[in-house]
Amino acid sequence: MKETTSASKKWLFQPAAALDIYAQQTAQTRQSALTKPSGALGRLEDIAIRLAAMQGNAQPSVDHVHIAIFAGDHGVAAENVSAFPQRVTSEMIKNFAQGGAAISVLARSINATLDLINLGTAHDTGLLDNVRNYVLGPGTANFIHEPAMTEEQLDQALQAGQEAVNRARQSNAQIFIGGEMGIANSTAASALACILLDTPPAQLTGPGTGLDADGIAHKLHVIQRALELHNPAVTCPMEALRRVGGFEIAALTGAYIRCAQLGLPVIIDGFISSVAALTAVKLLPDTTHWLLFAHRSTEPGHHHVLNALGASPWLDLELRLGEGSGAAVLIPILRLACVLHNDMATFTEAQISEKI
Amino acid sequence: MKETTSASKKWLFQPAAALDIYAQQTAQTRQSALTKPSGALGRLEDIAIRLAAMQGNAQPSVDHVHIAIFAGDHGVAAENVSAFPQRVTSEMIKNFAQGGAAISVLARSINATLDLINLGTAHDTGLLDNVRNYVLGPGTANFIHEPAMTEEQLDQALQAGQEAVNRARQSNAQIFIGGEMGIANSTAASALACILLDTPPAQLTGPGTGLDADGIAHKLHVIQRALELHNPAVTCPMEALRRVGGFEIAALTGAYIRCAQLGLPVIIDGFISSVAALTAVKLLPDTTHWLLFAHRSTEPGHHHVLNALGASPWLDLELRLGEGSGAAVLIPILRLACVLHNDMATFTEAQISEKI
Repeated sequence: MKETTSASKKWLFQPAAALDIYAQQTAQTRQSALTKPSGALGRLEDIAIRLAAMQGNAQPSVDHVHIAIFAGDHGVAAENVSAFPQRVTSEMIKNFAQGGAAISVLARSINATLDLINLGTAHDTGLLDNVRNYVLGPGTANFIHEPAMTEEQLDQALQAGQEAVNRARQSNAQIFIGGEMGIANSTAASALACILLDTPPAQLTGPGTGLDADGIAHKLHVIQRALELHNPAVTCPMEALRRVGGFEIAALTGAYIRCAQLGLPVIIDGFISSVAALTAVKLLPDTTHWLLFAHRSTEPGHHHVLNALGASPWLDLELRLGEGSGAAVLIPILRLACVLHNDMATFTEAQISEKI
Repeated sequence: MKETTSASKKWLFQPAAALDIYAQQTAQTRQSALTKPSGALGRLEDIAIRLAAMQGNAQPSVDHVHIAIFAGDHGVAAENVSAFPQRVTSEMIKNFAQGGAAISVLARSINATLDLINLGTAHDTGLLDNVRNYVLGPGTANFIHEPAMTEEQLDQALQAGQEAVNRARQSNAQIFIGGEMGIANSTAASALACILLDTPPAQLTGPGTGLDADGIAHKLHVIQRALELHNPAVTCPMEALRRVGGFEIAALTGAYIRCAQLGLPVIIDGFISSVAALTAVKLLPDTTHWLLFAHRSTEPGHHHVLNALGASPWLDLELRLGEGSGAAVLIPILRLACVLHNDMATFTEAQISEKI
């Protein structure tokens, strides 16, 4: 697919930062000197070495975590593709703000900054002190009839992602997590992945928040109708994102690209975040070097998207919540990987005999 | 296999504590009221509900963690079955005590008590303030020629495990981790698992700390010789443990049984700990209700032992270190599972619409 860019999207095509190969090699050397059989800490060793390359620091750390949650409504919710009513998007934004949602609890527990961004909902959230409002519209348009977003809405959503990452960098975050909330957003993510991967929707459509078999069949039919309308007109990943994406999916896409440009490691959560990551990688391929995939979701399409991205997640806890929750659960594992890497004694320091 | 018991082993046959089914049901009901699609937190929900049943508390927690590391040498090390020399056992005990080993770093990081127990090594460790010494002998006997332990040594090792758990309970630990260190102990664990599972050694023998293919073939041959000697004489799991086990494997076995008797949840680490867990379950079957399996090790026999125990570990991080390290890595995940369970808002509290 060929890319067309408007002036306001030019920032998206700045190059990604380079990994620090020297820090990576230094970290690799250190790992093999630590008092354990070589490789015995398995993927914890890999994490430390990858973070070293990303942070340009042979002794990496992830003490400062920035979690940005992007929320928005979807016009396609009118087609009854979700197990929950559309007003849950705004109700959950309130729950995030009041501290009762899973990601609120996780953010407190891992001592992360929680940055809440409302991109536009169908129902009023009321005044919420700790939520940033963009209000691109009362949700996207229903993409079985027309493109989900105008060019301007798409630009603003991408920009909202960029700005969240700029805030993360300004506050010296060492790692970025993007989360999402939006009733019907697994329908949008499935449709978008179908176009980007040229894959039939049956492989990428699942229960989302909890549809039964009939619900999934109906959702599949809705996605098929949308693809019939939009596929002929899609000339590039950006246009696919505009036509069948969503405000929060576009914001995550912009955020991931910005992280790659600034050299800030990202943890990707579940299915919807992974489709945004796929979109980001289609737009700026080197984004891939800055992405850590937290977990395998039970949403069936996640497997295909992970494969397309060459991703091997660390966790498989049968999560399917979104909100960045699975990414947040990985943080303590990353912290342990770093502290093992940084604080264990070497064979020489501890005067321990090496392998025969 | 029929069990024979000496008077000093009688404590092992006290019954396991019962799970609290009321706390379990209350926790289950709470999980389904929290502001997320039902089941969306997957195995994190299972952890919270299982801990509720174990702790008799519908709002469980694992703030206080007791890690007991049992170390001891193995006579069979004389057969060159390990990639590392035998003196590494005592050198690593010093490393544990000085804070440089993986488990030392992990224990500090997760704020756990680290209880170091030397059951008997071939090389002197020197005086170490924070190590408890039992000194059952300079390691076990070489089990290709004779039983690894005398009855008295076995009793003392089992007792050492019991005493560690009693200390954990006295200090109000909410969860127990047992770790092990002992050059050649994967040879002992493989031989023991072969007898307990009536499985050929080829399925249960692996590289341990890092043998190459020739080394594994030699280790397999050593185990086969040991099984030819001991299999005809083994009449019960206890006798298998005495003949081909080790001080630290017996101590872990005693510890796990004591945890079950006191109703203290246990996290099982890798291959060697799992073989001790298998031994404990053979001796006192209800021990199984008190065991949480942390991770799948890359040691090939672990898979078989986990299957025999009906275990589904939470993590698969390609770990193979021992020392209780994989179990310690699970602690932050358990803590997040508990805090999500305890602190998330319910649909009613947050006034969120339920499923259509």
